[in-house]
Amino acid sequence: MAPNIPTEQWAQVVEETGKPVVYKRIPVQKPGPDEVLINIKYSGVCHTDLHAVNGDWPLETKLPLVGGHEGAGVVVARGSLVEDVEIGDYAGVKWLNGSCLNCSFCQQSDEPLCPKALLSGYTVDGSFQEYAIAKAAHVARIPKDCDLESIAPILCAGITVYKGIKESGVRPGQTIAIVGAGGGLGSVACQYAKAMGLDIIAIDAGDDKKKMTAQLGAQHFVDFSTSKNIVSDVKAATTDGLGPHAVLLVAVNEKPFQQAAEYVRPRGTVVCIGLPAGAYLRAPVFESVVKMITIKGSYVGNRLDSAEAIEFFRRGLIKAPFKTVGLSELQSVYELMHEGKIAGRYVVDCSR
Amino acid sequence: MAPNIPTEQWAQVVEETGKPVVYKRIPVQKPGPDEVLINIKYSGVCHTDLHAVNGDWPLETKLPLVGGHEGAGVVVARGSLVEDVEIGDYAGVKWLNGSCLNCSFCQQSDEPLCPKALLSGYTVDGSFQEYAIAKAAHVARIPKDCDLESIAPILCAGITVYKGIKESGVRPGQTIAIVGAGGGLGSVACQYAKAMGLDIIAIDAGDDKKKMTAQLGAQHFVDFSTSKNIVSDVKAATTDGLGPHAVLLVAVNEKPFQQAAEYVRPRGTVVCIGLPAGAYLRAPVFESVVKMITIKGSYVGNRLDSAEAIEFFRRGLIKAPFKTVGLSELQSVYELMHEGKIAGRYVVDCSR
Amino acid sequence: MAPNIPTEQWAQVVEETGKPVVYKRIPVQKPGPDEVLINIKYSGVCHTDLHAVNGDWPLETKLPLVGGHEGAGVVVARGSLVEDVEIGDYAGVKWLNGSCLNCSFCQQSDEPLCPKALLSGYTVDGSFQEYAIAKAAHVARIPKDCDLESIAPILCAGITVYKGIKESGVRPGQTIAIVGAGGGLGSVACQYAKAMGLDIIAIDAGDDKKKMTAQLGAQHFVDFSTSKNIVSDVKAATTDGLGPHAVLLVAVNEKPFQQAAEYVRPRGTVVCIGLPAGAYLRAPVFESVVKMITIKGSYVGNRLDSAEAIEFFRRGLIKAPFKTVGLSELQSVYELMHEGKIAGRYVVDCSR
Amino acid sequence: MAPNIPTEQWAQVVEETGKPVVYKRIPVQKPGPDEVLINIKYSGVCHTDLHAVNGDWPLETKLPLVGGHEGAGVVVARGSLVEDVEIGDYAGVKWLNGSCLNCSFCQQSDEPLCPKALLSGYTVDGSFQEYAIAKAAHVARIPKDCDLESIAPILCAGITVYKGIKESGVRPGQTIAIVGAGGGLGSVACQYAKAMGLDIIAIDAGDDKKKMTAQLGAQHFVDFSTSKNIVSDVKAATTDGLGPHAVLLVAVNEKPFQQAAEYVRPRGTVVCIGLPAGAYLRAPVFESVVKMITIKGSYVGNRLDSAEAIEFFRRGLIKAPFKTVGLSELQSVYELMHEGKIAGRYVVDCSR
Repeated sequence: MAPNIPTEQWAQVVEETGKPVVYKRIPVQKPGPDEVLINIKYSGVCHTDLHAVNGDWPLETKLPLVGGHEGAGVVVARGSLVEDVEIGDYAGVKWLNGSCLNCSFCQQSDEPLCPKALLSGYTVDGSFQEYAIAKAAHVARIPKDCDLESIAPILCAGITVYKGIKESGVRPGQTIAIVGAGGGLGSVACQYAKAMGLDIIAIDAGDDKKKMTAQLGAQHFVDFSTSKNIVSDVKAATTDGLGPHAVLLVAVNEKPFQQAAEYVRPRGTVVCIGLPAGAYLRAPVFESVVKMITIKGSYVGNRLDSAEAIEFFRRGLIKAPFKTVGLSELQSVYELMHEGKIAGRYVVDCSR
Repeated sequence: MAPNIPTEQWAQVVEETGKPVVYKRIPVQKPGPDEVLINIKYSGVCHTDLHAVNGDWPLETKLPLVGGHEGAGVVVARGSLVEDVEIGDYAGVKWLNGSCLNCSFCQQSDEPLCPKALLSGYTVDGSFQEYAIAKAAHVARIPKDCDLESIAPILCAGITVYKGIKESGVRPGQTIAIVGAGGGLGSVACQYAKAMGLDIIAIDAGDDKKKMTAQLGAQHFVDFSTSKNIVSDVKAATTDGLGPHAVLLVAVNEKPFQQAAEYVRPRGTVVCIGLPAGAYLRAPVFESVVKMITIKGSYVGNRLDSAEAIEFFRRGLIKAPFKTVGLSELQSVYELMHEGKIAGRYVVDCSR
Repeated sequence: MAPNIPTEQWAQVVEETGKPVVYKRIPVQKPGPDEVLINIKYSGVCHTDLHAVNGDWPLETKLPLVGGHEGAGVVVARGSLVEDVEIGDYAGVKWLNGSCLNCSFCQQSDEPLCPKALLSGYTVDGSFQEYAIAKAAHVARIPKDCDLESIAPILCAGITVYKGIKESGVRPGQTIAIVGAGGGLGSVACQYAKAMGLDIIAIDAGDDKKKMTAQLGAQHFVDFSTSKNIVSDVKAATTDGLGPHAVLLVAVNEKPFQQAAEYVRPRGTVVCIGLPAGAYLRAPVFESVVKMITIKGSYVGNRLDSAEAIEFFRRGLIKAPFKTVGLSELQSVYELMHEGKIAGRYVVDCSR
Repeated sequence: MAPNIPTEQWAQVVEETGKPVVYKRIPVQKPGPDEVLINIKYSGVCHTDLHAVNGDWPLETKLPLVGGHEGAGVVVARGSLVEDVEIGDYAGVKWLNGSCLNCSFCQQSDEPLCPKALLSGYTVDGSFQEYAIAKAAHVARIPKDCDLESIAPILCAGITVYKGIKESGVRPGQTIAIVGAGGGLGSVACQYAKAMGLDIIAIDAGDDKKKMTAQLGAQHFVDFSTSKNIVSDVKAATTDGLGPHAVLLVAVNEKPFQQAAEYVRPRGTVVCIGLPAGAYLRAPVFESVVKMITIKGSYVGNRLDSAEAIEFFRRGLIKAPFKTVGLSELQSVYELMHEGKIAGRYVVDCSR
């Protein structure tokens, strides 16, 4: 372990569900034999963090809890079994902090489905502190030519949308509709879709979103606030009028979901990546069968997806818009988020 | 055209939707340049035929209509462009009577999705007559060592369940749950699943069904009429307790569908092949996403699926239980079907 | 048939294998019931045409023969069964002029493997004439916003390289090495690879090729004429040094092939699309097994591949460099080709 | 650690390459934190073991070396980090003793391609001893209802042929040709192929092999010692005469390989799993391209493949013929193997 690791640090702590987070000094942990300690420089703030603070998901959190799962920093210590992460390496704390690497899901590279998965900022402490622990096998490897501040939102938002697009099975040259394309996840999704050679139909509301999604690479825009018939408008945006090959539902709620099942091309795929509490997928059986459509849930990426998503970022193809504040101001970010006032992503600087 | 083709024949005709079929003499048609004329020996009777008679699907039928789409017979005439079907060949009339062979769906072997698809016994006359017309490119090729009576139900029921299993992506050695395993489609599905090297969980009600599905190859049985917790019972029937890799919903209605989404293994696939009017697929978004499950509609097979399904039959691996009556008695079969009194498949002998 | 179709036309005819082509007047054919007649405006010239003239492939040609299989023009007549091609449509004559649409290969969308495939400019007359016949199901559909002169080389070169890249299974963000990247096929391959979101290692000789492939989208270049170790240089061009995920061998001969098997990443795929007479694939068994590499032959695209390749062109993503001369000068093009003096593609203007 | 683990044990040790193995007492090792100690009951003997003894592969072995990589036994101790293997569990030592679980290959479930892979009986001590060490993440989980003696050969032979069949991409109902079907690997391959619903063409020599492969599930037999034209005979054994969809080359040498490329169906796959020193894959480019064939090397299975191969065994579907002798007699087994006198597999009883 490097000599200059302090024994205490600043952190934002959820002491009680539903209450504001508390900015305070807590001890720095020591990594176990298969773990590393990362000096977090920057961390993105995700809606999931707010769900953890509020405790409104059907999954219990650790308490007290340090939230955060988009942490980018520098490795400062490692356990005795760790061979392939060096002190001084850039590394990221992702939602998936660790997994057993051994169950049937881990064996098929589906670590996010591991029953023993550790979730950063949810079942284990996350990245809203200066020094975070993570399983060495799961930390994101961040190349040295990446900027730690701007890569932070890639570590959850980027990986998740990239995985969702992969899961759709859409191929270069084919068309994807992104529902909520102008939002935080959606804007990142547009950039990945462009980098993957896709034709993009952005679905969102308002001319600002239209302009922004066009700049991010979307060739088509359907405004759900003014469209008289979303289904026919989306279909009309495809070259042959048969609808997009895939639909990415970034912010699933029931109505857009049913529309997606209607406008997706026969044999097409609707992928849901959002996690709204209590919502249901719903589609008519008859049309689903005769159109042979596929509906899929896509969770976060595995380690390979993560590396691939980061490589797209490293090549300069992904630029998620974000705004940086000090870690000490996290509560105010949650408040803005709660009020729905955030465009793009917030990043916290863990040094202040 | 062979010299002994009559100009008139017996047929069962839907003259008005919702009324009994009429057994009468009608003219024998002449095949167009890309068509063949088949002397139908036997035809299976499918629930879809009853839907056509009743007109209760959101798709218009031809009127007057000769129903039937499981017709097995002998080619007696062919059009000028037909080169690869010979007079005297055994051939079958399937649900998909023809397609354009040229649209983007036909080009990717998804002929059932062709917008110009001709549907036997629905949009064109089918197999409840002595001589039926079909597009040469679409008739099922039936090897000479197959029995025309027993292969009839394969031409829709067999192909459809085989396609559904293929669409599930399940691999040999993995587990499939078949919901409605003891019914007409389900019992055929059990046999295909066995021939494909699958571990089968039959879900149905009653000891008779348990015994029958065991004979057809199912290793496990869950009785939905007595189970206190279907979800946990289905999971318990898998070696590792994680649930089946795939679920085939033969007779979709809403409750079994939601259960399937619960007991299917994470990363598993739920396939619906039934076409109940007005039913909806419904699954909770949160669980679907974190389990990464896939829900798919599977329609009828394409030409390749059809040939493969027939080859399994030819090898003696599929024996669908059926009962044969004369074509003249078709109305009584519909009545039994309407009353839900049919176990297995009915076949009509078109010569009487 | 439109009234202004002449009965005679100019064509370049192979009267005897191994002799120069003869520019002469021949009759205009009439389309059969499932065919169209296309007024060819421009046709690309491919090495395969020279093979046909020389008769040096293990496949017999028709004689006398009108060569050419990259013909772009306007539909002027159609047979009685043709419904989905209109008089006045833009259409292309491809290598695959027709297929049975019915054998097991056609049924699985592998029309190029059809035993009854008709090959334009090889087993049937092709596009080096003013009016060419093709099966309606197989003509390339060319959107009206495409330029017929510049799309001609896409109809074989474009489709073939696009298919080869698809067959490699490489995904957006992964790396492909293109051997012969600066040649006629290679330069088109670079553009498709770029449009498909790939990282490209161009392998060729000389600074001109380096500059050109960089302009076409290749991020890396390995000069086989100056490299001291091609295998290690190609590996070094990948981010992690493990080699490219796929290798596209545009001009297969034995040495590059063996090198490809050495530098391709474990689990990677080597695709051959060239057709040199008498050459052999050759790779050491031990290394192929422990690296689990895949070696594949890729022939021309099917109809779907063709439509996709054309759509990339339509979006302005593919610009194959070419030079146009009159059809009457075809023999001089063959002479340049024979001398290896052609950079990029030649196109003939069939009106002169 | 259980109290009754001895500190010394019997083992067969390779002290010098090319010399007979030495049966002697050596210390029992202690497992590291991520390892388990297995009391080996039975171990299969594989040709690879002979390669290790002879040192004739292009890969260095550890020296002195305890060989063996088909060891079945009982877990008697585990390291501090091991949570999912219990003392008393049945477990197997496979060729892949361990891997980093973290490189890009491990991340995509290709642990056999891990550059840091530990190979049992080759780069680390294996199963020809009473107590063997293996990485917990990699030991084969053997269900308690399996017989340890008869499962031993599954741990390499079984997994390897099962993986090879999977890699071929062949689907239930399709045809696979197994070259060397009557040998040790081949006979196990026949049983897996049968359990996977495949139609099997066994290729080998002699009536004994014909009879044996028929009993193991092969529907067809081609005798390469008497066939006048192997290519046409293999094709003739398929229903449509187009050749098998896949070919499994158990014992690759150059001649069978070239034949396989000729008789495999267009779009088919030839998989090599044998590792003969110095042999080359070789296939004509022209035919490979126009037939679009795939040639693949398949190495040993990953952990998931291993579990699946074992599950087939557990269900009673695989019965590899074997003969058991004491561990002390290992050298005599090597001598028989060297003389080519072994039919089926030898298993050693490590207790004597």
